[in-house]
Amino acid sequence: MLKNKERLILITNDDGYWASGLNALIEVIKPYGRVVVVAPEKGESGKSHSITMSLPIRLKRISEEKNITLYSCTGTPVDCVKLALNQVVEQKPAMVVSGFNHGSNSSISVIYSGTMGAVIEACFNGIPSIGFSLLDYQEFPDFSASQKIAINIIEKVLAHGLPTNVCLNVNIPKLPFSKIKGIKLARQAMGIWKEEFEKRIDPSQQPYYWMTGDFHNNEPNATDTDEWALTHGYASVVPIHTDLTAYHAFKHFTSWHYE
Amino acid sequence: MLKNKERLILITNDDGYWASGLNALIEVIKPYGRVVVVAPEKGESGKSHSITMSLPIRLKRISEEKNITLYSCTGTPVDCVKLALNQVVEQKPAMVVSGFNHGSNSSISVIYSGTMGAVIEACFNGIPSIGFSLLDYQEFPDFSASQKIAINIIEKVLAHGLPTNVCLNVNIPKLPFSKIKGIKLARQAMGIWKEEFEKRIDPSQQPYYWMTGDFHNNEPNATDTDEWALTHGYASVVPIHTDLTAYHAFKHFTSWHYE
Repeated sequence: MLKNKERLILITNDDGYWASGLNALIEVIKPYGRVVVVAPEKGESGKSHSITMSLPIRLKRISEEKNITLYSCTGTPVDCVKLALNQVVEQKPAMVVSGFNHGSNSSISVIYSGTMGAVIEACFNGIPSIGFSLLDYQEFPDFSASQKIAINIIEKVLAHGLPTNVCLNVNIPKLPFSKIKGIKLARQAMGIWKEEFEKRIDPSQQPYYWMTGDFHNNEPNATDTDEWALTHGYASVVPIHTDLTAYHAFKHFTSWHYE
Repeated sequence: MLKNKERLILITNDDGYWASGLNALIEVIKPYGRVVVVAPEKGESGKSHSITMSLPIRLKRISEEKNITLYSCTGTPVDCVKLALNQVVEQKPAMVVSGFNHGSNSSISVIYSGTMGAVIEACFNGIPSIGFSLLDYQEFPDFSASQKIAINIIEKVLAHGLPTNVCLNVNIPKLPFSKIKGIKLARQAMGIWKEEFEKRIDPSQQPYYWMTGDFHNNEPNATDTDEWALTHGYASVVPIHTDLTAYHAFKHFTSWHYE
């Protein structure tokens, strides 16, 4: 391992640079190296892997103190990582961490998540990267258990690295640390967000729609999923990769006689 | 197969409801059933799987004629699919198609793509879904070859369905139909978008950044990828799934002694 003073760690999130979850994660990371934070100027939840293509991006240095430099960025979490790697840091970070997200990114929420979009972008760049999410949507939740879990995982990743093209999606149940049973390696549960749009009428008598939704776990009896781990008192760690190819489905198509 | 008059097909895209690629796709689809189009009000390229969480969404009926109803939606491509399924269509579509995208969505671009975000959202909902992209970024490209390829694939999917939780990412080279060698089943090439942000100074002397980038194929010699197929004159079909779990990486973590 590099000595801490030589190690640069990049932090981002999708809740914005002022979020209490970001500050709780900075507290975890700062003993491990020099910290650069590039986080969104405003909330960017649900932004997935989106990038800003038709507008320019602004970057603003918010604060600089004792090995921690904090920037806000007008782009998405993925933009934050791209801009940080290209314009802010002068060396390749040893690690990129994103979070603590205020709310779950388990199951298919990983695909909607801005927190995990940033992590996957770092993974494309060959940097060990981890997203941390606490299953608590409050503005100021208790992150103390999440911090202990994060330290455990970060030390393992700093010591052992991650396989090529693999990053981690870590979710932590809303429990005091003493009630968390452990950390479970899990697969992504298959599920669905069932939307119920709420239709309203504006003062000009025009309709508009608010998206609301409930998550449904399609495999509640499977015991090897992140959803199972979380509902049974474990933090979940899902190794995530960036190859969406459905290899198992190839046999379905070979009979199509493509050429 | 259902009779055409009983079949409902939902179309969307990420370039906007007026895009020539959308119109070219509507032309392909309309012989196969009743068509509902819910497409973004403005360009939503690069929006990935993002959803609109902090703003309401507007829906506007633009036109209705002979079994084709077209709506614009202020949200992302994924919002378009969610809103269409929840508020617009009165029966589950037999298929969702997205495109024709103006530009490639091969390799890891599938993860940034709004076109494919919509397709994956339909896949979550158990609907056979296909994204079509032409490797031509012009506003009015020649879609005639893409239309022939699309008909070929759409008829196969209508006849044989798709495996559960699998959708298709179809990319078509910028070639006349006579020069396209065939349709190749392929895996997603691993690659990276290398960004070079262009820093400019605004009239108030403040900096801003434009994202630019070049795609680099990390495995140019692999002959089973979508990139290989496209650069060798084939249309590529990559079956895509929605489980990001890196199963092959589990063995890396079992030595971590999590519990």
